[in-house]
Amino acid sequence: MDHAQARSWLATALAEARAGLAEGGVPIGAALHAADGTLLGRGRNRRVQDDDPSTHAETAAFRAAGRQRSYRGTTMVTTLSPCWYCSGLVRQFGISRVVIGEATTFRGGHDWLAEHGVEVVVLDDPECVELMRDFIGKHPDLWNEDIGA
Amino acid sequence: MDHAQARSWLATALAEARAGLAEGGVPIGAALHAADGTLLGRGRNRRVQDDDPSTHAETAAFRAAGRQRSYRGTTMVTTLSPCWYCSGLVRQFGISRVVIGEATTFRGGHDWLAEHGVEVVVLDDPECVELMRDFIGKHPDLWNEDIGA
Repeated sequence: MDHAQARSWLATALAEARAGLAEGGVPIGAALHAADGTLLGRGRNRRVQDDDPSTHAETAAFRAAGRQRSYRGTTMVTTLSPCWYCSGLVRQFGISRVVIGEATTFRGGHDWLAEHGVEVVVLDDPECVELMRDFIGKHPDLWNEDIGA
Repeated sequence: MDHAQARSWLATALAEARAGLAEGGVPIGAALHAADGTLLGRGRNRRVQDDDPSTHAETAAFRAAGRQRSYRGTTMVTTLSPCWYCSGLVRQFGISRVVIGEATTFRGGHDWLAEHGVEVVVLDDPECVELMRDFIGKHPDLWNEDIGA
């Protein structure tokens, strides 16, 4: 896909991540777009805010999009490389593409997704890297809890 | 693990699955047990009940268990072989064992989990098989929606 388009979609996920940070949460955001580009759902990690370990950014965006008959052609945009939980979500539901803000501070299952036919775009966005690097430095226990480490 | 113990834990997941069926939902249930056997959380698929595609049985049980510092030694019991989404959950959070009611009507990612060090016990429970076979026969569209097929 066009990187300018990917960067423009990343802005929504980044706004979610920043909102999560402001709430004292894990600053990861995501957005799910339809094949025609329509925003279907957006969300952020809510472990701290809702005391809910099951709400990662990607699962929040997926949930916000509501029930869909098919995910063919959809794109999951996320500020951070998706963990196995969120990678499994993408594979199971046949989400066609994943746009990733950065995979420097954490590397999840995106190579596995690419092997299974998902289009993967890693943007190496410096703002996403800085957000996570700063958060991990300040809250290593919370970060480890969030990824089961 | 001891199969009698596994069967006794399966009863909780089966009760959840039956409750889901009674609500008109996808009849899959799950329960998460601590290393010492304590029940940490239980839940069922809530796609229909809550119009929520993100709540599979395993993610519901995981959520109900609340925030845990570690999943070492825990067991996820589920009436059906976990899909990629739920298999990813198990792998990411380091859940040590998965007890599966049946893998006949649907085969998810449990071989992949076994390859990555998760203990997998498949019980081949006839009641679990019948529940899903009957449901899939009556509601093929809903079932396909639930697994993104």
